[in-house]
Amino acid sequence: MSEEPPIKPGMIVGILGGGQLGRMLALAAAELGLSCHIYCPDTKSPAFAVSAARTIAPYDDESALAAFAGAVDVVTFEFENIPVETLRFLAEKVTVFPGPGSLAPTQDRLTEKTLITDLGIPVPAFAVVAEQADIYSALARTGRPAILKTRRLGYDGKGQAAIRAGDDPVGAWRVIGQAPAVLESLVPFEREVSVILARGRDGATAAYDVVENVHKDGILSTSTVPASIPAELTGEAVSIAQRIADALDHVGVLAVEMFVMSGGGPRLLVNEIAPRVHNSGHWTTDACLCSQFEQHIRAIAGWPLGSVERHSDAVMTNLIGDAVSEWPVLAAEAGARPHLYGKAEARPGRKMGHVNRITPRSSS
Amino acid sequence: MSEEPPIKPGMIVGILGGGQLGRMLALAAAELGLSCHIYCPDTKSPAFAVSAARTIAPYDDESALAAFAGAVDVVTFEFENIPVETLRFLAEKVTVFPGPGSLAPTQDRLTEKTLITDLGIPVPAFAVVAEQADIYSALARTGRPAILKTRRLGYDGKGQAAIRAGDDPVGAWRVIGQAPAVLESLVPFEREVSVILARGRDGATAAYDVVENVHKDGILSTSTVPASIPAELTGEAVSIAQRIADALDHVGVLAVEMFVMSGGGPRLLVNEIAPRVHNSGHWTTDACLCSQFEQHIRAIAGWPLGSVERHSDAVMTNLIGDAVSEWPVLAAEAGARPHLYGKAEARPGRKMGHVNRITPRSSS
Repeated sequence: MSEEPPIKPGMIVGILGGGQLGRMLALAAAELGLSCHIYCPDTKSPAFAVSAARTIAPYDDESALAAFAGAVDVVTFEFENIPVETLRFLAEKVTVFPGPGSLAPTQDRLTEKTLITDLGIPVPAFAVVAEQADIYSALARTGRPAILKTRRLGYDGKGQAAIRAGDDPVGAWRVIGQAPAVLESLVPFEREVSVILARGRDGATAAYDVVENVHKDGILSTSTVPASIPAELTGEAVSIAQRIADALDHVGVLAVEMFVMSGGGPRLLVNEIAPRVHNSGHWTTDACLCSQFEQHIRAIAGWPLGSVERHSDAVMTNLIGDAVSEWPVLAAEAGARPHLYGKAEARPGRKMGHVNRITPRSSS
Repeated sequence: MSEEPPIKPGMIVGILGGGQLGRMLALAAAELGLSCHIYCPDTKSPAFAVSAARTIAPYDDESALAAFAGAVDVVTFEFENIPVETLRFLAEKVTVFPGPGSLAPTQDRLTEKTLITDLGIPVPAFAVVAEQADIYSALARTGRPAILKTRRLGYDGKGQAAIRAGDDPVGAWRVIGQAPAVLESLVPFEREVSVILARGRDGATAAYDVVENVHKDGILSTSTVPASIPAELTGEAVSIAQRIADALDHVGVLAVEMFVMSGGGPRLLVNEIAPRVHNSGHWTTDACLCSQFEQHIRAIAGWPLGSVERHSDAVMTNLIGDAVSEWPVLAAEAGARPHLYGKAEARPGRKMGHVNRITPRSSS
């Protein structure tokens, strides 16, 4: 349990990373009377426009980091590809949540999977690929189809290559830049779900309703709540997320992506952990009183967790690349609320916004 | 109908006034991919912390206003005590909504009441008090109790003084600074309600559910939705607000406060108009998909109006002065969402925040 004093209204939240997640965290912090200071190397960060202060500097600039630490009351991050050294450096000077202990294991796919399996939680078969020669033994372990993923710095399908029947495994190795990797079995899942769970400084946890996800080209396409899974699986999914959050001594929002299997083995396999607010939690903004963004701010600030109750059913659809040009249609659609990230350039694969469609709450 | 082109994501909304209304407008604009530029004389404006740009200058600084007009794509205002000359000056250079035609009549209580009565809409008995000698004839018209209000620049009970049985009318005149005033009959209303209505550039209107208000010491204390009034009064209240919005050719959100009477006369008397987002609409943020703030931005931007449907019942309670110190209790209360304005100093009578409490939607 943390003994740091709670953050009070009027204080300043420092956020590492200035993308849409940082932007939505800053909007939520503002509603709680907090102001934000964004630290990001990118001069065009969408979060800047809604924050009181900014630092534009690389993540390894110790003098900029020290000044940032001195200017804020608590530090958090919007995504897990911040160097862990950055977080450790800051943690010596200012309160940091989630701590380096949450970040380090989740930014390397091997340590992440080891942590999960050490908890007795099933994952798809996997094997380490440290060098080219490892690929064949790894494939023997996972079977085909499999997916080769860089151990570090992957997101939204980047740093990944599938190896299906007939594919040249060495070709996949080249596609991912011959970086240290993990080969994972591409399991024939029935559906994909995720749990968005918050854990407070005091260890209290609260999980939103389990959400069902559909990916396209490695990028989340839609999230639907409630998920079409039986109640006992819902409980098991939340329990898995909670055990992971406890094991990390995590403070903040944590997302756990899982595969729902239909065979005779375990019904849930963990795919990935994200130690942060997550795209599959964006529906909470419009279907819950307390969004995942507010929830994260509450947790890191040492406040009580907010309500995770769902007042409406919801379908979140990402607006990727040119899809954002549909905004006039979405703005005119009853029951739909577009969220746009203020990014100037709609490059293919770039998340430009999302739309939440809500309907009255079903019984489940 | 306006022929100005609509505002597109990425464009800049200029907001005159940097208080909590400007702040919440800026937060809503951000969700639509717009960024905000706040113009306000007050160096400590709460809206600055969530906006991309600011101009700190008096409202009559023509060079600052001209630069502001050149830096933004549309101008709106957060409250009606902006000089109408400011709006007229800006309107020559940039799109402005609501226009001076909405602002001018509503910033003077006499022209406002004249406009309403000219529409055949009932108001409490009133009389002009231009100089001290007018008070007695005015009282003869309104009877006692009555309330003397400055014609201009009043809000939250400021610039008002009641004249009850035994009170010295000249004393009331001194309390309000001997400014040109209107004396209004303090009618024995059954309850107070308001209509929050939006009118688009195309003249389309949409009204949220009628809300029931309780004031304390001239300041709004709570707003509850749905209001406890029969369906026919709901329809009449919305019709009144719509006729006023149409008469003003208003673009944006407009609030109309009304008294519900129980006697044999008209059931609804209009108390006040506010040509802007309104404190009695704050519940919409947590009980509707599209808040009054987003709705206002949509209207002034030339977008279609959003959904006004209420997914939950709500009670909004203002946090005035020291009441904001209750935030830790409110943060821990299930079903409550505190909204804090980031103001440093909790002076008596100052609106520091509000809390929305939501419950599942009732049938009414």
